[in-house]
Amino acid sequence: MNKQITSTQNTYIKELIQLKEKSKQRKKTQTFLIEGLREISLAIDGQYKIEKLLVDTSIISDKTLEKIIHSFTYKIDCIEISNEVYQKLALRGSTEGIIAVAKSKDLSLNSIQFKNKNPLILVAEAPEKPGNIGALLRTADAAGIDAVLIANPKTDMYNPNIIRSSVGCVFTTTIATGTSSEIINFLKQHQINIYGAALTASVEYQTINYTNASAIVVGTEATGLTENWLQNTTANIIIPMRGKIDSMNVSVSAAILLFEAVRQRQLSN
Amino acid sequence: MNKQITSTQNTYIKELIQLKEKSKQRKKTQTFLIEGLREISLAIDGQYKIEKLLVDTSIISDKTLEKIIHSFTYKIDCIEISNEVYQKLALRGSTEGIIAVAKSKDLSLNSIQFKNKNPLILVAEAPEKPGNIGALLRTADAAGIDAVLIANPKTDMYNPNIIRSSVGCVFTTTIATGTSSEIINFLKQHQINIYGAALTASVEYQTINYTNASAIVVGTEATGLTENWLQNTTANIIIPMRGKIDSMNVSVSAAILLFEAVRQRQLSN
Repeated sequence: MNKQITSTQNTYIKELIQLKEKSKQRKKTQTFLIEGLREISLAIDGQYKIEKLLVDTSIISDKTLEKIIHSFTYKIDCIEISNEVYQKLALRGSTEGIIAVAKSKDLSLNSIQFKNKNPLILVAEAPEKPGNIGALLRTADAAGIDAVLIANPKTDMYNPNIIRSSVGCVFTTTIATGTSSEIINFLKQHQINIYGAALTASVEYQTINYTNASAIVVGTEATGLTENWLQNTTANIIIPMRGKIDSMNVSVSAAILLFEAVRQRQLSN
Repeated sequence: MNKQITSTQNTYIKELIQLKEKSKQRKKTQTFLIEGLREISLAIDGQYKIEKLLVDTSIISDKTLEKIIHSFTYKIDCIEISNEVYQKLALRGSTEGIIAVAKSKDLSLNSIQFKNKNPLILVAEAPEKPGNIGALLRTADAAGIDAVLIANPKTDMYNPNIIRSSVGCVFTTTIATGTSSEIINFLKQHQINIYGAALTASVEYQTINYTNASAIVVGTEATGLTENWLQNTTANIIIPMRGKIDSMNVSVSAAILLFEAVRQRQLSN
């Protein structure tokens, strides 16, 4: 262990607390915190550069720590922190005793490179909560799609609640953010069909052919997609609601639509 | 208004607080509380007998109250309660100012009568949280399926958190509870195919024909279905996971499976 920090008043720890709490600080420094073993492993797999590991040896075992240190291809700087410091940096409820400081990636649209000639993309417009984004990213990982684009996000993608609710899928999926107009332009430039999920649409989702390059666009549960999206789609699609309720959880809708697209693509192969 | 109650120490109010908090009390009295306008309306639609309405006139408008009272086909007993009493009875965050005391329904398996010759059923084994049950009930409502059966439930179905997270879909869908063995026997007696969702299964879910009488069975996210279920199914099915993560939220899995079944049934009609 290179170093020990036991005071929550330590300048570096104070900076890290800012990273945990403030989107602005994450943007300014282009760094963020990752909590938890699985999440850190997925970030390493996802080619994120880890700058430091902070470990509470009263929680994490020597064996576990050794294993994670050996999974790096470069020498990782490791700082031992007291339990008091760890509690300040950790989100409530976590008990794994390890936090990484990682370098942000460029999440601009022009950073995206598609491996697939006919990509399948999920777009979410202004998701209400970090937990919604996390749930969408889990579904995107499971469906193995090419990218998730967040339009007009209300937070940055390295918000600790997104990392947590995505169980690390924020690191496994290609993601980018932009304004709705930027994303619409991006999709049109790449000749990607745009299918907007809308309760007012007349085309049932399962009648669409998603085997060509396709973006499925979902809005918020409360208000759906904005006019900017609805008027720029290839088609607006609806999941028929057969009961008494007229709305669905956004991650549930996205899962139904994406897995229908995946099903069709598998059939056509 | 027949009556006013302003004290949280009132005997009847104390009984209602017990109803809100204790499953045992709901079972004993065969009554439960419903909070919120939409939820109460859906319960009325679902033929639930409402015994009383408790209203906080500092929140609910006369017009709204009149409308709901007129939606009853029988004379409804209405009690005005103070804001202090309302706050004791309401779940955190609600602001509609109306709570109903309702009579429970018989949720035993033998109460179920299928209208459909080839019913589509969702079974959830021992869901971990009321919120999971609520989410499943929302999906079941949207898919318009014939019944939701909860095996080995950890709470009664009139838990206020189930009512709330289901946005009232607990009243719109036919539901029943029982032990896993009872439900397995019930499905076999009714010659309903049983499809268990399992990460260890080799049959991909989309290769199954769900147009016959079908029950889709999901376990918990943490441990999946028990052996009792896995060994009593027509087939165990898997949603192929194409990413780095090996589990899905149970309501997302259920939605993917149910909407595939609904899609097939629609095509075959």
